[in-house]
Amino acid sequence: MIDPRVASGLRDVPPSVMIPRERMLAAFRQTFASFGFLPIETPHIERMEVLTGKGAGSVEVLRQIFEVTNKGGTPGELALRFDLTVPLARFVAKHVEELGVPFKRFAIGSVFRGERPARGRFREFVQCDFDTVGTESRLADAETAQVIHAALTAAGVPAFTIALNHRKILDGMLELEGLADRSAVVLRSLDKLGKIGREGVMKELAGGEGDPDGRGLSTDQASRVLDFAEQGKGGVEVLGRVESALGSNAKAHQGIADLRAVLDLLDAAGVPESRHQIDLGLARGLDYYTGVVFETTVDGWERFGSVSSGGRYDNLASLFTARKLPGVGASIGLDRLLALMEEAGWLGAATATAPVLVANFPGGDPATAVRLATRLRKAGLGAEVFPDAIQVGKQLGYGSTRGHKFAVIVGPEEQGREVFNLRDLATRQERKAIPWADLETVVAAALASLGGGAQ
Amino acid sequence: MIDPRVASGLRDVPPSVMIPRERMLAAFRQTFASFGFLPIETPHIERMEVLTGKGAGSVEVLRQIFEVTNKGGTPGELALRFDLTVPLARFVAKHVEELGVPFKRFAIGSVFRGERPARGRFREFVQCDFDTVGTESRLADAETAQVIHAALTAAGVPAFTIALNHRKILDGMLELEGLADRSAVVLRSLDKLGKIGREGVMKELAGGEGDPDGRGLSTDQASRVLDFAEQGKGGVEVLGRVESALGSNAKAHQGIADLRAVLDLLDAAGVPESRHQIDLGLARGLDYYTGVVFETTVDGWERFGSVSSGGRYDNLASLFTARKLPGVGASIGLDRLLALMEEAGWLGAATATAPVLVANFPGGDPATAVRLATRLRKAGLGAEVFPDAIQVGKQLGYGSTRGHKFAVIVGPEEQGREVFNLRDLATRQERKAIPWADLETVVAAALASLGGGAQ
Repeated sequence: MIDPRVASGLRDVPPSVMIPRERMLAAFRQTFASFGFLPIETPHIERMEVLTGKGAGSVEVLRQIFEVTNKGGTPGELALRFDLTVPLARFVAKHVEELGVPFKRFAIGSVFRGERPARGRFREFVQCDFDTVGTESRLADAETAQVIHAALTAAGVPAFTIALNHRKILDGMLELEGLADRSAVVLRSLDKLGKIGREGVMKELAGGEGDPDGRGLSTDQASRVLDFAEQGKGGVEVLGRVESALGSNAKAHQGIADLRAVLDLLDAAGVPESRHQIDLGLARGLDYYTGVVFETTVDGWERFGSVSSGGRYDNLASLFTARKLPGVGASIGLDRLLALMEEAGWLGAATATAPVLVANFPGGDPATAVRLATRLRKAGLGAEVFPDAIQVGKQLGYGSTRGHKFAVIVGPEEQGREVFNLRDLATRQERKAIPWADLETVVAAALASLGGGAQ
Repeated sequence: MIDPRVASGLRDVPPSVMIPRERMLAAFRQTFASFGFLPIETPHIERMEVLTGKGAGSVEVLRQIFEVTNKGGTPGELALRFDLTVPLARFVAKHVEELGVPFKRFAIGSVFRGERPARGRFREFVQCDFDTVGTESRLADAETAQVIHAALTAAGVPAFTIALNHRKILDGMLELEGLADRSAVVLRSLDKLGKIGREGVMKELAGGEGDPDGRGLSTDQASRVLDFAEQGKGGVEVLGRVESALGSNAKAHQGIADLRAVLDLLDAAGVPESRHQIDLGLARGLDYYTGVVFETTVDGWERFGSVSSGGRYDNLASLFTARKLPGVGASIGLDRLLALMEEAGWLGAATATAPVLVANFPGGDPATAVRLATRLRKAGLGAEVFPDAIQVGKQLGYGSTRGHKFAVIVGPEEQGREVFNLRDLATRQERKAIPWADLETVVAAALASLGGGAQ
């Protein structure tokens, strides 16, 4: 016998998780599409060169890459994608001439990272990305936050906060501190503020002799950078507060103006103020962001980290094409969001995909069961026929366990009279002898009385 | 610069293919769910042992396996799945105690085979599988054909034929010929009838001295086997025709009775007779089938081969568990079906995901564009705002190319009067000065007049 376990760090997704997951994905697809994003798909396997090209991914991610080889293939040539951004860059570089810009795409799919397995961290997980490529428009920046808002709302997340910042504000502040040359490494440290705290970041920023990244900030500099980052989160007033201090810097000025425009557009889009806030400490670790950046936490569940992050970049596909492609986008971490919602109890109980179970009565006519179930489906009501004519009590037990709402039962006596019994599987109450002719009406009404039990 | 090409045998799926593909997948998911099939997902990566275990796949498939290794991992331990059946067997063996039977699952996902790349054959393709595990019921057999019928109908395939046969009929015939010991190899040859023709199969069956599989049929035997397989396709009368010849054989008798029951249930399910036929030559190559087998071709497009195949098996997971798990299922070849429908012209033109383009008028108020688009989406009408305030003519050109139906245009004059113009992007006719208050009503009516342009 072969052990039926999955490989380390991987997992099976059972129906109880898949049902809410598919519901969530349908909500995301519908949301992305309603804003004009177009679906694309790229292969799970990419050429190694595409994935590891200079700057394509962080060193840590490259260390986690899964290599792929087939019989007769050359080792080291192929690998599994570790995100959907590098494949997007390759896709756009390859197809931009025929697609034109702006190009708005969404992509949903598994990505693979050979991380050390840990609770809640898997080596394969699903990302949902959307990007607007080929425009520098602030409207696209604002729309990115608007889509995060619409998608999480559609997914049933009751309250969340989209944190906003702008790389140019941080860059301007660092310029004024004389740290423009160390901006990338300083921001990477700052990105860890939530994780390692002020003390930790101070230590990193001070760097010292042995710091290969050469941060080497003075204690005063480090303090001022942290004071700036921690000066509070809030609405447009936060921008007002730092404007005079940074106003002389052209970059910061630009960043502040961009964020003001984004806030105005979010207001026009009807995104409530309670759903977003400026956070001057938000840095995002990735080097390629150059403008607005986003992170989204679920209110009261901040310890799960960001469930949707993104930002604006100047040049998406510089590894693959000379054509400069600015854009903005974000990614929703489906699996993290699902884990959070499950723990919060927001997913509801696992439920059958079809609300009605049609029993297969011992000694009854299976063709009748098939006929009635087919009629229910035609009326848009999911119906499952129990395949074996075993004891009806066992069939009803199956229905209760699976989460079916009602059972339609036709025994030999009901068969002769062309009637059925309708059993509520939760209350165990049974309505007897309903004419077959009334099937769709009665079942639909029964399901409606439960409040949306139809599938 | 890195070449942005995909690896050999792989491909990008652009929006023009993804949009009909997602529509089709939504139809399949909805169909599977309406019969009570539950969604599951297994990892793309499985342990090599699970995939290559004795009998888990054909030799040819195993030769095409993609090995997966991560840094620090042991080579040869992991591989990409080549179908969804082996993962199902592993999944059921692992989880059957908590899930119970009957267990009805569907799974949709990419599988990987290192085949020699050729036109229309890819190394990664999507399979859509559904199975009913843990029952020997004929009802589940019939339901499998019923689901194929419902799914292809929902996908918009105008006419197709589900060919049905039963392994026990073929086994019985071979027993009567004294060929019971060579049944597996003979059926594998017979499966090639469509591909290599009668002559080719005759040659294989005659085998000769050097045949490692030891077919070695006499010319008379081979002729009789082929005569049987080719004696025509049709309705229940085909069964009647062979009944007396095979009736003395218990296996054949059982197979004929099963098929009769399946035909009766398909009739009860309202599947038209024109959609299915008995085909005594249908063998299916895979050894694990033991009962009813299916193959489905699209009428007039038989040269594309089967778009949905499957059958009944006695013991799904014998590699992984001592528990005997009979079942029945089928797989729909999404990519083949899409390729066929594209060639047949049944997919319709590529279309935008949002039917309305809201122009971003140069010198106009972008907030108005965002506000109107948000209102349209709230009314269920997909709306995309053009991100850049470039020449309106260019924006309209973008809309026409992408397949948007209408453009909403608010210039500075319309802004002051709180009105908009609605341009039909196909006819280029423009209705002027419609009050903002009437936005949803007017746009919905305009889309309805096109016959279902709303997304």
